[in-house]
Amino acid sequence: MRKLYVIGIGAGDPDQVTMQAVKALREVDVFFVMGKGTEKQQLVDVRTAILDEHAGRPYRIVEIPDPPRDRTPADYNATVLDWHERRSMLLEEAFAGTEGVGAILVWGDPALYDSTLRMVEQVLARGTLAFDYTVIPGVTSVHALAARHRIVLHRIGEPVHITTGRRLRAEGLGGGSTVVMLDADCAFTSVPGDTYIWWGAYLGMPDETLFHGRAGEIGAEIVRRRAELRARKGWIMDIYLLRPAE
Amino acid sequence: MRKLYVIGIGAGDPDQVTMQAVKALREVDVFFVMGKGTEKQQLVDVRTAILDEHAGRPYRIVEIPDPPRDRTPADYNATVLDWHERRSMLLEEAFAGTEGVGAILVWGDPALYDSTLRMVEQVLARGTLAFDYTVIPGVTSVHALAARHRIVLHRIGEPVHITTGRRLRAEGLGGGSTVVMLDADCAFTSVPGDTYIWWGAYLGMPDETLFHGRAGEIGAEIVRRRAELRARKGWIMDIYLLRPAE
Ligand SMILES: C[S@@+](CC[C@H](N)C(=O)[O-])C[C@H]1O[C@@H](n2cnc3c(N)ncnc32)[C@H](O)[C@@H]1O
Ligand SMILES: C[S@@+](CC[C@H](N)C(=O)[O-])C[C@H]1O[C@@H](n2cnc3c(N)ncnc32)[C@H](O)[C@@H]1O
Repeated sequence: MRKLYVIGIGAGDPDQVTMQAVKALREVDVFFVMGKGTEKQQLVDVRTAILDEHAGRPYRIVEIPDPPRDRTPADYNATVLDWHERRSMLLEEAFAGTEGVGAILVWGDPALYDSTLRMVEQVLARGTLAFDYTVIPGVTSVHALAARHRIVLHRIGEPVHITTGRRLRAEGLGGGSTVVMLDADCAFTSVPGDTYIWWGAYLGMPDETLFHGRAGEIGAEIVRRRAELRARKGWIMDIYLLRPAE
Repeated sequence: MRKLYVIGIGAGDPDQVTMQAVKALREVDVFFVMGKGTEKQQLVDVRTAILDEHAGRPYRIVEIPDPPRDRTPADYNATVLDWHERRSMLLEEAFAGTEGVGAILVWGDPALYDSTLRMVEQVLARGTLAFDYTVIPGVTSVHALAARHRIVLHRIGEPVHITTGRRLRAEGLGGGSTVVMLDADCAFTSVPGDTYIWWGAYLGMPDETLFHGRAGEIGAEIVRRRAELRARKGWIMDIYLLRPAE
């Protein structure tokens, strides 16, 4: 039975990789890399740094380009599902065309806003290619954010909610602590001004930038700084925790 | 300036420790271990396994016993705050009484249902002992659960809510995906029977046990098995993801 690893590698710092991930990497013959466009070179750099330091035997890298995707679809879910399906067919082809243990390295942890597992399940569901797969958990950008700010995500005994920028805009801020990811347009500008925000971009990377304070006081500064950083590098990854005033 | 590390070590498997954590461990002279009672020997075992494999220079371990705590307090928050305060004074004493780089190893990640950071902040707030501290994020039991079940925590583009058993009972299940931690009395028995549950106990440890299915169909089996495991070992740690039927 062929074997595939889906490995969380942490959210930016190559040293965020776990020993468990390192041990798995050492067994891998071929890494499948999903194309992310040239602007995300630094993500590729992190993967390369990890492989250079930890891979055991000689390995191959097979790049799988992303199929084209409608970024402002009418039916968001259907479009995403179809895109996943097309990606999963490319993965299947690539896996079938190679030998030995395969692996897909996933940014952060595979269980959080990542489509790799759905894609692997789609390959299995088609039933053409039989293989066993193992998931290795990783440190997420949520915990990278909290660590850099040295905070606990929630107040004592309270819950924490993890959502997207799109949803924050649509649904507003709930009563507890909310982590917002995948926010392309500063949805934190829509919350009450006395909400506390802990913001971080490029966590664990050389350009790491942190801000914290009341959204009403530092929100505009974050918007400005974010645009500047994004323009300079060509891409940005940011995440933040919001907590309503007590 | 003295230095203190707060290090997430992963949620059960000693190999869940990150390279970043390992590099920090190698700088540490003295580890402060918060007492957790004899029943949690396996937690101490994990820490010991990590230190045996990765610690660099000779190190000391200083045990800090937990001050007594009212487990069924009238005012939950006040009681917890007071308990944290008393623990923080014990930590301060211990840190002041030793030399070199200190560290506290935290189960999972320090930002999730853990009081170490609040305790460290309390020590700093008293202003008697000056030191710098760094937090190293870890893999949480949430992601360990998802990895063992090979699932994504949420449906595409949806949020995920992380809460406690106490709150699930008090507030009921929301519409999306909910992770429940710190549940001493099987609050999943209170959700609609067609809710899907992915349950895991002792994740990453030799007694790891997994169940998944409809709460109405496997809930009673989990309750039975959980009681059995708990009786056999003297303690249990379990966590689960709930998702309402579509
Ligand atoms: C597609 S999701 C992947 C999340 C990943 N699986 C994880 O566990 O962190 C990408 C989002 O994660 C967040 N993110 C990931 N890495 C980050 C980093 N190093 N700094 C800031 N945000 C990051 C951003 O919100 C970004 O939009
Ligand atoms: C005090 S909280 C600490 C959580 C930890 N900081 C983390 O990041 O996972 C303890 C709770 O975490 C969950 N937990 C931690 N480790 C676990 C494991 N190995 N298996 C199952 N549940 C675990 C259980 O719900 C337990 O009640």
